[in-house]
Amino acid sequence: MRRGLFISLEGGEGAGKSTQLKRLADRLKPRGEVVVTREPGGSPGAEAIRALLVTGAVDRWSPISETLLMYAARRDHIERTIEPALARGAIVLCDRFFDSTRAYQGAGGSAPAALIAALERDVVGDVRPDLTLILDMPVETGLARAAARGEGEARFEAKGLAFHQRLRAAFLAIAEAEPARCVLIDADAGIDEVEARIWRAVEARLA
Amino acid sequence: MRRGLFISLEGGEGAGKSTQLKRLADRLKPRGEVVVTREPGGSPGAEAIRALLVTGAVDRWSPISETLLMYAARRDHIERTIEPALARGAIVLCDRFFDSTRAYQGAGGSAPAALIAALERDVVGDVRPDLTLILDMPVETGLARAAARGEGEARFEAKGLAFHQRLRAAFLAIAEAEPARCVLIDADAGIDEVEARIWRAVEARLA
Repeated sequence: MRRGLFISLEGGEGAGKSTQLKRLADRLKPRGEVVVTREPGGSPGAEAIRALLVTGAVDRWSPISETLLMYAARRDHIERTIEPALARGAIVLCDRFFDSTRAYQGAGGSAPAALIAALERDVVGDVRPDLTLILDMPVETGLARAAARGEGEARFEAKGLAFHQRLRAAFLAIAEAEPARCVLIDADAGIDEVEARIWRAVEARLA
Repeated sequence: MRRGLFISLEGGEGAGKSTQLKRLADRLKPRGEVVVTREPGGSPGAEAIRALLVTGAVDRWSPISETLLMYAARRDHIERTIEPALARGAIVLCDRFFDSTRAYQGAGGSAPAALIAALERDVVGDVRPDLTLILDMPVETGLARAAARGEGEARFEAKGLAFHQRLRAAFLAIAEAEPARCVLIDADAGIDEVEARIWRAVEARLA
């Protein structure tokens, strides 16, 4: 079975993931099929679960319920979208993947690390990203950008500054703990400059 | 903290759980608060997840996605309904609980036993039923009853005879493995007789 390349983009609110994902997809398209997808979502079932996750009151779900909904969506996304694309040899670009659960529900919401580890083992298995780009910027800058944009994952943006600080710390810790998979990108720069930084990381992986 | 009593009813399709749950609740009401609830569901969040689970095509969710949705709903149900009721000292009667996941998604759907065990440990924790009544009857009888009723969990009723045979075997194995918690009730009898059998099991536990 020929296998494609699985790249995830991670980071806090307002880090510019969506914009950079589009630009990265455009750069990669000459090399073959590129599948751009996102979490939570990315398949019809997962998008139905997403609707439960990103709307409603900020305390609608506890961290554990939220973790399980994220993983239910993730499993559907893996089975229906990611695995078939990788089997075709496509490059899959995913806006958020399991690191977001570690950060948002784990570090941010204090869902038990043992639960998250068990889910990574039994639900994700070996469908792990080959490369994870972690877009980092000061929390205040990201939240201001997200607010100005006036759209997106409103339930998570509403969680307060301390939550988002824990989130940033968690992403930095992941980048440090898994340097073979993760590249930390300083995203507090102009869009073109961030694009160039991302491209350098991806090109090194493609070579 | 005063603690109530947590009783779950389990069994395949058409075993008569709903009818028996109502009758048991009526018998228990003179003793204090009785909370009658069900899974998947039993809290606003869990009922929203239920809508994703019990409708749609028979292969809408894979066994692992289904397990995770069930547990997301279960966690919400535990936090918002079951734990508060037990803390008030109520008797909680629940139409299905975690044994249904072991049977439907585990034995019936082959979701990994390690995943289900991890979820029981980290998501249910010590909110385990004090007593589980497992209503048993031949699969053909139960399915014919469920079909005549013409309502309920259509997605699961549609899964075919072999699935429902695995389900029955799983419930029998649970009853055998956990005799301190589980009582097997022969439900292939008249409603009044089954009610009497259930009441004997519950009275023994209340004494």
